[in-house]
Amino acid sequence: MVLDCANSSVSDFVLEDVPHLSDYIPDLPTYPDPLQDNPSYAVVKQYYVNKDDTIVVHKNSPRGIHFRRAGPAEKVYFDSEEVCACIVTCGGLCPGLNTVIREIVCGLYHMYGVHTVLGIEGGYPGFYSRNTVPLTPKVVNDIHKRGGTILGTSYGGHDTSKIVDSIQDRGINQVYILGGYGTQMEAALIFEEVRRRGLKVSVVGIPKTIDNDIPVIDKSIGFDTAVEEAQRAINSAHVEAESTENCIGVVKLMGRYSGFIAMYATLASRDVDCCLIPESHFYLEGPGGLLEFIEKRLKEQSHMVIVVAEGAGQELLSENPTPIKRVQGDATPDQLFQDVGLWLSQKIKDHFAKRKNMTLSLKYIDPTYMIRAIPSNASDNVFCTLLAQSAVHGAMAGYTGFTVGPVNGRNCYIPFHLINEGEKNVVITDRMWARLLASTHQPSFSNTKEMVGARDEKTENQTSDS
Amino acid sequence: MVLDCANSSVSDFVLEDVPHLSDYIPDLPTYPDPLQDNPSYAVVKQYYVNKDDTIVVHKNSPRGIHFRRAGPAEKVYFDSEEVCACIVTCGGLCPGLNTVIREIVCGLYHMYGVHTVLGIEGGYPGFYSRNTVPLTPKVVNDIHKRGGTILGTSYGGHDTSKIVDSIQDRGINQVYILGGYGTQMEAALIFEEVRRRGLKVSVVGIPKTIDNDIPVIDKSIGFDTAVEEAQRAINSAHVEAESTENCIGVVKLMGRYSGFIAMYATLASRDVDCCLIPESHFYLEGPGGLLEFIEKRLKEQSHMVIVVAEGAGQELLSENPTPIKRVQGDATPDQLFQDVGLWLSQKIKDHFAKRKNMTLSLKYIDPTYMIRAIPSNASDNVFCTLLAQSAVHGAMAGYTGFTVGPVNGRNCYIPFHLINEGEKNVVITDRMWARLLASTHQPSFSNTKEMVGARDEKTENQTSDS
Amino acid sequence: MVLDCANSSVSDFVLEDVPHLSDYIPDLPTYPDPLQDNPSYAVVKQYYVNKDDTIVVHKNSPRGIHFRRAGPAEKVYFDSEEVCACIVTCGGLCPGLNTVIREIVCGLYHMYGVHTVLGIEGGYPGFYSRNTVPLTPKVVNDIHKRGGTILGTSYGGHDTSKIVDSIQDRGINQVYILGGYGTQMEAALIFEEVRRRGLKVSVVGIPKTIDNDIPVIDKSIGFDTAVEEAQRAINSAHVEAESTENCIGVVKLMGRYSGFIAMYATLASRDVDCCLIPESHFYLEGPGGLLEFIEKRLKEQSHMVIVVAEGAGQELLSENPTPIKRVQGDATPDQLFQDVGLWLSQKIKDHFAKRKNMTLSLKYIDPTYMIRAIPSNASDNVFCTLLAQSAVHGAMAGYTGFTVGPVNGRNCYIPFHLINEGEKNVVITDRMWARLLASTHQPSFSNTKEMVGARDEKTENQTSDS
Amino acid sequence: MVLDCANSSVSDFVLEDVPHLSDYIPDLPTYPDPLQDNPSYAVVKQYYVNKDDTIVVHKNSPRGIHFRRAGPAEKVYFDSEEVCACIVTCGGLCPGLNTVIREIVCGLYHMYGVHTVLGIEGGYPGFYSRNTVPLTPKVVNDIHKRGGTILGTSYGGHDTSKIVDSIQDRGINQVYILGGYGTQMEAALIFEEVRRRGLKVSVVGIPKTIDNDIPVIDKSIGFDTAVEEAQRAINSAHVEAESTENCIGVVKLMGRYSGFIAMYATLASRDVDCCLIPESHFYLEGPGGLLEFIEKRLKEQSHMVIVVAEGAGQELLSENPTPIKRVQGDATPDQLFQDVGLWLSQKIKDHFAKRKNMTLSLKYIDPTYMIRAIPSNASDNVFCTLLAQSAVHGAMAGYTGFTVGPVNGRNCYIPFHLINEGEKNVVITDRMWARLLASTHQPSFSNTKEMVGARDEKTENQTSDS
Repeated sequence: MVLDCANSSVSDFVLEDVPHLSDYIPDLPTYPDPLQDNPSYAVVKQYYVNKDDTIVVHKNSPRGIHFRRAGPAEKVYFDSEEVCACIVTCGGLCPGLNTVIREIVCGLYHMYGVHTVLGIEGGYPGFYSRNTVPLTPKVVNDIHKRGGTILGTSYGGHDTSKIVDSIQDRGINQVYILGGYGTQMEAALIFEEVRRRGLKVSVVGIPKTIDNDIPVIDKSIGFDTAVEEAQRAINSAHVEAESTENCIGVVKLMGRYSGFIAMYATLASRDVDCCLIPESHFYLEGPGGLLEFIEKRLKEQSHMVIVVAEGAGQELLSENPTPIKRVQGDATPDQLFQDVGLWLSQKIKDHFAKRKNMTLSLKYIDPTYMIRAIPSNASDNVFCTLLAQSAVHGAMAGYTGFTVGPVNGRNCYIPFHLINEGEKNVVITDRMWARLLASTHQPSFSNTKEMVGARDEKTENQTSDS
Repeated sequence: MVLDCANSSVSDFVLEDVPHLSDYIPDLPTYPDPLQDNPSYAVVKQYYVNKDDTIVVHKNSPRGIHFRRAGPAEKVYFDSEEVCACIVTCGGLCPGLNTVIREIVCGLYHMYGVHTVLGIEGGYPGFYSRNTVPLTPKVVNDIHKRGGTILGTSYGGHDTSKIVDSIQDRGINQVYILGGYGTQMEAALIFEEVRRRGLKVSVVGIPKTIDNDIPVIDKSIGFDTAVEEAQRAINSAHVEAESTENCIGVVKLMGRYSGFIAMYATLASRDVDCCLIPESHFYLEGPGGLLEFIEKRLKEQSHMVIVVAEGAGQELLSENPTPIKRVQGDATPDQLFQDVGLWLSQKIKDHFAKRKNMTLSLKYIDPTYMIRAIPSNASDNVFCTLLAQSAVHGAMAGYTGFTVGPVNGRNCYIPFHLINEGEKNVVITDRMWARLLASTHQPSFSNTKEMVGARDEKTENQTSDS
Repeated sequence: MVLDCANSSVSDFVLEDVPHLSDYIPDLPTYPDPLQDNPSYAVVKQYYVNKDDTIVVHKNSPRGIHFRRAGPAEKVYFDSEEVCACIVTCGGLCPGLNTVIREIVCGLYHMYGVHTVLGIEGGYPGFYSRNTVPLTPKVVNDIHKRGGTILGTSYGGHDTSKIVDSIQDRGINQVYILGGYGTQMEAALIFEEVRRRGLKVSVVGIPKTIDNDIPVIDKSIGFDTAVEEAQRAINSAHVEAESTENCIGVVKLMGRYSGFIAMYATLASRDVDCCLIPESHFYLEGPGGLLEFIEKRLKEQSHMVIVVAEGAGQELLSENPTPIKRVQGDATPDQLFQDVGLWLSQKIKDHFAKRKNMTLSLKYIDPTYMIRAIPSNASDNVFCTLLAQSAVHGAMAGYTGFTVGPVNGRNCYIPFHLINEGEKNVVITDRMWARLLASTHQPSFSNTKEMVGARDEKTENQTSDS
Repeated sequence: MVLDCANSSVSDFVLEDVPHLSDYIPDLPTYPDPLQDNPSYAVVKQYYVNKDDTIVVHKNSPRGIHFRRAGPAEKVYFDSEEVCACIVTCGGLCPGLNTVIREIVCGLYHMYGVHTVLGIEGGYPGFYSRNTVPLTPKVVNDIHKRGGTILGTSYGGHDTSKIVDSIQDRGINQVYILGGYGTQMEAALIFEEVRRRGLKVSVVGIPKTIDNDIPVIDKSIGFDTAVEEAQRAINSAHVEAESTENCIGVVKLMGRYSGFIAMYATLASRDVDCCLIPESHFYLEGPGGLLEFIEKRLKEQSHMVIVVAEGAGQELLSENPTPIKRVQGDATPDQLFQDVGLWLSQKIKDHFAKRKNMTLSLKYIDPTYMIRAIPSNASDNVFCTLLAQSAVHGAMAGYTGFTVGPVNGRNCYIPFHLINEGEKNVVITDRMWARLLASTHQPSFSNTKEMVGARDEKTENQTSDS
């Protein structure tokens, strides 16, 4: 799906390369890729990636940023018998974790003959506080049909030194880490410590965030599944709203810093009258405000559906020291009353109760945990498989300190630091957001000046703009 | 599925009979059932119910209470050409409304040759404030595959006199009313006014409550579908809880006065550690209390799922004048902060935050609107079809002022007053609740004395006890 | 859901009682039910069934046939520590097998403290040709969410003597057998041999047939789920047919001897124009025949959906020695070309190709294996749970040589011989079939004489007639 | 998702441009895009595509083949009031047709203020043999939630002259044609005739084939949905096979000339042991043949699942003049007995019956019509929306004689002739097929020479190779 400029012999491009075990361990032996002896693969020589294969993103440099393309290498840096891999899952759930676990285990086993894979239970703390569980193709055979992660997960609990001690003590030499921002940041620390100690250990990140807000990469695992399930919630809101007079269905969807799920679910369902995301500011009161729009839409069709990403309008919640907000003072991040969906629902109710004397029915749906916990759909299953296999190829080829992910449609090895800088956002001056506006007929809730500013800052090559 | 004692010639039984148009209109002509001329039905003489067919419930009288069995009559009191039927839906959504609408229209059309059926939009007020919409088999052909009600619905807005004026003015002579308690109570008023005016109008109620708490009848429409969908929410809670250490999934399900959905969804899913329903009191603090049980279960397996019916523990919410409760002071019935699920979640969090210093993760799921809004499943479709056809047969046979519903497995005509007295509850000294306890291993949270009292009061023949 | 005549003191009724271990083993010790010591159950004294509790079916004798009601007994005939139970699944798949396995294991474990349950793999031959697998609550925890049977299944392979040898050698004393006709018949032989040898072994059958054609009992496991899934196939046929001119969608559904799935799926979907079942004969050619009806319906609406149960019209297939049939000569029962769906599709195509010159499009769908293999839905899960618990209660109470199943809405113990006599059929002179005709508007395809004959033979109390 | 080389000023590239109304009609007036007056869009100037925006595919020419990028133009060639559009659907069903219809209607209405859109019923013949149906946003509001096409479809019936007469007589000036190969070929004829007559009529093709085998474009509508549903069928086969000893589940999937659905469904489900597609030849007998592989796999794990695309092994069916084949002599394309799935099933049964004396159970599933008839999933809904909007933008901008489709991740206008040349195939020397082999562990069934030949012929830039 992409133009491959790999063979360009020019020298003025930037290759964002990733570390390699041989960078800090001299004289590592290499082995022929075991796949070569397999009659099924022998003839498919294309199967191996060339060391020069890269994927290009045109961004700041004229010749683009190049990423090393993922794939099997002709020489590997691990003997199959020698490999002791481990897998750990950290942070919140998203569809597809079990599929990735399954495919790392099966990929190592069937492609490379690696038979020792350990599961680390309960996230990072599991490295030093719990027993490992052996993972075999038989154990993981059906797990992709279940939601969640069979390994369990947790937030935090990162103690780099103890984790690397455990890696060293257990003789682990390939570490596969599934997780989002924080997790990948901590993976970078593990990699640094591993390198400092001079260990022959590949540290591989597999990015996981249902919000799809990881920079550089096109898409994160579970996103398609999440949009599909979000659409079901929107459909329920639509049925409720359409069946009742002056009824508003409000659906809160995931997305703290970016509104991708909200945007795609809105585009997919066609039942939404207003979609609010963190990237597009809105205000409630006055001309051009949200409440005015709601009144207008209700008068026109007597029902409406609002989708709100959890990070939308957060600046409004904190500017308004309402009694609800004060309760939030010492709230943990997940504290219930910070919920923008509940806040917005209350604001709408108050508005219609006090100011308008128009009977309103409001149905609030928060499908977050029902979305996170389902198994991945077919398209995510294929995606997870490719990602897991790419991770395995990278580790076997001796690369380390990298995250694997799709860039311009192909899996690449990306250095940790790029993943951990900033976040990917919906660009509201892009076509996709314009398409959403064309679908919902909602106003932009922003003044022109703000938009033009945004437009001018717009980067040229956004993966969301297709 | 039931013993039919209909032919008993004894005289000491109670027949809870329903009104008939001929009770107050003399000399009504009758017509042969049009089905007789249809070659498909002619030979199936069993098809007609005998006037003496009744369904028995053994309750207070020794020979039981008898209900008139629903079914086609050999003589009907309406000429097909003369019939002008209308359908109205009131109250909250539940799966199956569209199926009932469809089958009333198709039943009248195909079984009796009735071609004039009007839809009243937006509930009771639609009788006098809105136009009617013509309903034909073509219009309703696919509506059973959609959730909600194509006619729209509303709460309240009942003006008996204006409604009966509208019935009279429009020449309507069969009124089909889908709704719950309030709706059926108002249907009784419409019937009284119709009789007072001496109109040849059959007023037929079709009971609708997703909570399954209507007395006399076995089951209400949409219940099976609701349990199925509730199970999905429970499964999500289970996946979340199992994937995270010290994690509690809390699922709030419908059921203000009765816990049928919660009980059956718990039995169906097998993933629940604790099910709280209005009929079984519980307390939070102290020995034998809910919080102690939660601690114990978390220590044993480090995760758990709690299902709570919306009416459970309401006495605790109102006894405890917490800041949350005070906000509820002027709350409307649906006001968000009265939510037992949110309240319970907060109580659990507070308990573990302040008293135990044990990190807890709590995931709260409220799938209410996602459950209400889905289309009915196959088993509810069959059930709705039978109910709708029974309603049509009853109206054509000249009965009026009745609700149709299954009693001991067969559809009967039930006088309004029985439907509007009391509510059906889960009997916690019955086997089904014992089975639930056996499945969740939760304590009863009640002291023995209370239970024994309940046991002794227990009525002998509960439809829930199978 | 049923009238309970249990306390009638009259003596002229027939109790179809089941064997008991004490019938042939003298002086068996009894033990108090372990549930009594459990605080959750202690107060629910209603929980125990009285020895006199029976469920009545009015059939041939004036006072009806009585069946012993299933439930926990106050005295059990096994010490928990002593029990060594085994479970075997035989015959074809149906939704719910894993749920039953799970609930037998969990019921024994949690209700009775039984910790030794063995799985017999691969059906009856597994008793003597394979190792057993230990079944614990942990092992079976999630299996009800998967289709099929974790134990594997097979047809035949029954060697009574070797099976009972294995039971004796392994010290098994409770045998739970899930299967249909053949399986239950063989279970009866096992019971006879066990009794002959004087072993203290309870042999319990759990009836399994997706066709719902087992006599005496109301419903078999997986039926609701099967109807739900069948409805999906019918919907596809409907979409195909409606989107194409002169298009017929043909859906073949399970049902060799009875058409329950076809009938209920037709009633549930409302998209069917013609439903053909084994119980209702039809003919193809000539006036009043199926082909004439198809032509008529196509002319009216240009598309139609036909549902055909696999056993429908078998007499036509064998009367017509077409080339297709001859291939069937030495066919095994499942041989593809005996397929009534393919045969009917070809007949319809031939008719329109040769005789009418009317372009016809025919889409044939056979969802059989997609239906059989899905997990059970919520309502079947509850049903399977109750059935499994009833089986466990019966075995613990010392009953043997019985099948458990719902009779008039309540689970009973039924002697093997009644289950193995005849089969349950759709009664085409009953209301339910009449409702189907009213829904599809199909003719009866039978002459009046035949129907009247059927009507007169009709038994009075059919469970299908609700 | 793609590198945009559009601004390259070099002159040696090939632009595969599409016709424009102004090519043959002089002095056409233009109008400002109506979106400009819409406050929501005004600020999003990026929204308009530049005339020079192209998408590049590197194939034969050194600078690549360029396609005109789809999107709104600043000047349109139709006044909104003047537009009379029509939509027609031809050929077999696939998920998403209704979504495309909906979005053409809503796109024209909401983006361009076009209120006259006609539906042509029943495919091409509908132009001259049937009435048109008016399509408004209200009419199409919910149709994307239903499978099939609300317009109906048919094969063939193309009479260019009568179709263009009808277009001319009815004053239609935008023609949207949804269909596959044949349909697009006929659309080209319509365009030629329209141009010959000098009519101001834009003729726009929207490619539709569930097989995903249309050249040039990345993906066709409904493909993701089809793979998802195919996975369900595979899962059923897996459950059946795993539950029975020596059981083979055979699933036939769509794909006459290309095996994309089979390949992706295999990769997604992870339950498949062997995937047969038209692009990869296989043979049954002898060493290295399919039957040998089946024996081996059954011996290893006693069950297996085979997925076969309908076009796989067709050369074997025709080389083998078996009785089955002879029946196929005068068969129509859809004739049942040509079915490779039935043929293969019979071959496997025969092999094990006659040669091996090993009892085999084979379950054959053909989910074709169940896959085709379902509604599109969320990801296809977004895809269909973008495609429909691109089509509308192209027609409004005055382009004609083009098909719209994604090339390297972005929608382009593609001249008809490229769409109608050849077909897209799975490249069996590509990574994706190698991944499949790695997942199923099936042999290649081909000798090395054949594969090497294929490898050398391999084109450099295959969209399937990601």
